[in-house]
Amino acid sequence: MKLVSFANNGRKSIGAIVGEVVIDLQTAYKAKLQKEGKFFSNRVAEVCLPDNMVEFLQGGKESMDAAKEAVQFALKNNPNDIPLLLNKSDIKICAPILNPGKIICVGHNYRDHIVEMGRDLPTYPVLFAKFANTVIGPEDDIPFYPISEQLDYEAELAIVIGKRARNVPQETALDYVAGYTICNDVTYRDIQRRTTQFFQGKSVDGTAPMGPWIVTSDEIKDPSRLEISLSVNGEERQRSNTSNLIFTVQSLIEYLSELMTLDPGDVILTGTPGGVGVARNPQVFLKDGDIVRIEIEKMGVLQNKVKKAESN
Amino acid sequence: MKLVSFANNGRKSIGAIVGEVVIDLQTAYKAKLQKEGKFFSNRVAEVCLPDNMVEFLQGGKESMDAAKEAVQFALKNNPNDIPLLLNKSDIKICAPILNPGKIICVGHNYRDHIVEMGRDLPTYPVLFAKFANTVIGPEDDIPFYPISEQLDYEAELAIVIGKRARNVPQETALDYVAGYTICNDVTYRDIQRRTTQFFQGKSVDGTAPMGPWIVTSDEIKDPSRLEISLSVNGEERQRSNTSNLIFTVQSLIEYLSELMTLDPGDVILTGTPGGVGVARNPQVFLKDGDIVRIEIEKMGVLQNKVKKAESN
Repeated sequence: MKLVSFANNGRKSIGAIVGEVVIDLQTAYKAKLQKEGKFFSNRVAEVCLPDNMVEFLQGGKESMDAAKEAVQFALKNNPNDIPLLLNKSDIKICAPILNPGKIICVGHNYRDHIVEMGRDLPTYPVLFAKFANTVIGPEDDIPFYPISEQLDYEAELAIVIGKRARNVPQETALDYVAGYTICNDVTYRDIQRRTTQFFQGKSVDGTAPMGPWIVTSDEIKDPSRLEISLSVNGEERQRSNTSNLIFTVQSLIEYLSELMTLDPGDVILTGTPGGVGVARNPQVFLKDGDIVRIEIEKMGVLQNKVKKAESN
Repeated sequence: MKLVSFANNGRKSIGAIVGEVVIDLQTAYKAKLQKEGKFFSNRVAEVCLPDNMVEFLQGGKESMDAAKEAVQFALKNNPNDIPLLLNKSDIKICAPILNPGKIICVGHNYRDHIVEMGRDLPTYPVLFAKFANTVIGPEDDIPFYPISEQLDYEAELAIVIGKRARNVPQETALDYVAGYTICNDVTYRDIQRRTTQFFQGKSVDGTAPMGPWIVTSDEIKDPSRLEISLSVNGEERQRSNTSNLIFTVQSLIEYLSELMTLDPGDVILTGTPGGVGVARNPQVFLKDGDIVRIEIEKMGVLQNKVKKAESN
């Protein structure tokens, strides 16, 4: 499944996207349970398929199974009174996870990016954090605040945690993954470099465009062979393959879960390939109106426009 | 007021502490509205005084005023049928904010700590992050996981944001502060130093003991003159005064709110004075059974025991 968060007439909900059609999971599940004559169908649907992605993921396998049933039902039954199939163009697709509890970022994780930044290959993953204020969706513009002239992009494969994880070995790590999404770890480079700690250059509102959806892990059994590329205004700037990750998806989950409890809805950004603007010769940064497009194999495209903000 | 989060027979709630007595704010406000003959008193109390500190802080001045009324009412009226005054010893005091949206940490912010670490005075605040998995309360033990032998303490004054803040100048910064609490930025030093980024050594579960309460900002009008000290097993290890902060509470709010939106319930750790274990000669780290006690003037004492965890 491709899971989305969306807004329809102001109401936020979660759904599955099939082609150009979005199925509101909770509404479809209510309709299914009603048709089956189940008691308390509305309340059961609200519990099984909450309208918030983090809560949905907390529901684990039961909620995921209910979602699949809801999608199958909606595709076969599209009653006129409650339309279960929404046109993608009639709604707003939001970031799949609006309010992740953690956004953990990995730096220096593609061999080529490390070389271009003039750094040594790391013994341990380089880790830093972003908060939920950075999250924007696939239909949002990247705000470029007048606090810097060095706005840069970083294409990243993002892991979405689906089950509480603590001390998970590599061998079973993928069992804890709900799916994957695309994330742009947008960075204000000069602010990043004000101190030794990357955090502040990564902390600005709107610096984590995410989406367009979560591809569930049953559709990506092997996250270590995905082509990843980024272009600006159609010009390719980054291209690599997740086979170049120094720390794989599995090893990151092992490493992180030895330090901390990972919870459903937590997002792990796995690092960016070579080709970021600050490392180019000459350096080139994003500007108002630029179109930043990230494509990851089997996942799709995340595209956002840079929009100058007059003030913070 | 001194605001606490607490658990009573498994139910989590928020309250105000007066001496050895805790007043459940929502329960007391319900009783007050009922006595006044208000309609929908239960529902109004649940909306005005939610049982979660972040939501309470989101309520802003209205919720804060309702809390004050609830406390006044409970102190004057203590009906037998619904006891409004709880003995502190009968309940568990938890971290005042169980699930902060952001925990932003400032490094190198006391002149003496910078000197002992052999660093230059910073031009910009050094910023890094912790997530909510690190939060524990004043009655909890600090878990010492067998992933390191270098567990260290850092006594810190923590700012609790009470109102959404974006681009706030120093002059009005304190208007956005709900109050202050004490935090121990517990650090696994060797893990911190695996890479250039502090985050991972600060990310381990249970590394942000917080509390015992939030002292509301009307009781601490000037956060720049507070004595702060830390002892281990009664031996003083850190002592300074917030007058030694390089970046003051006001300037941190200005600086941070220029980068990002600060929201109610966000917590800012303002940095630690000299005297941390890693900088002592010889170095000394925390061990199983150690009692770490932080005292900040006008605020009280946060004391936790270190407890060796057999496994993660």
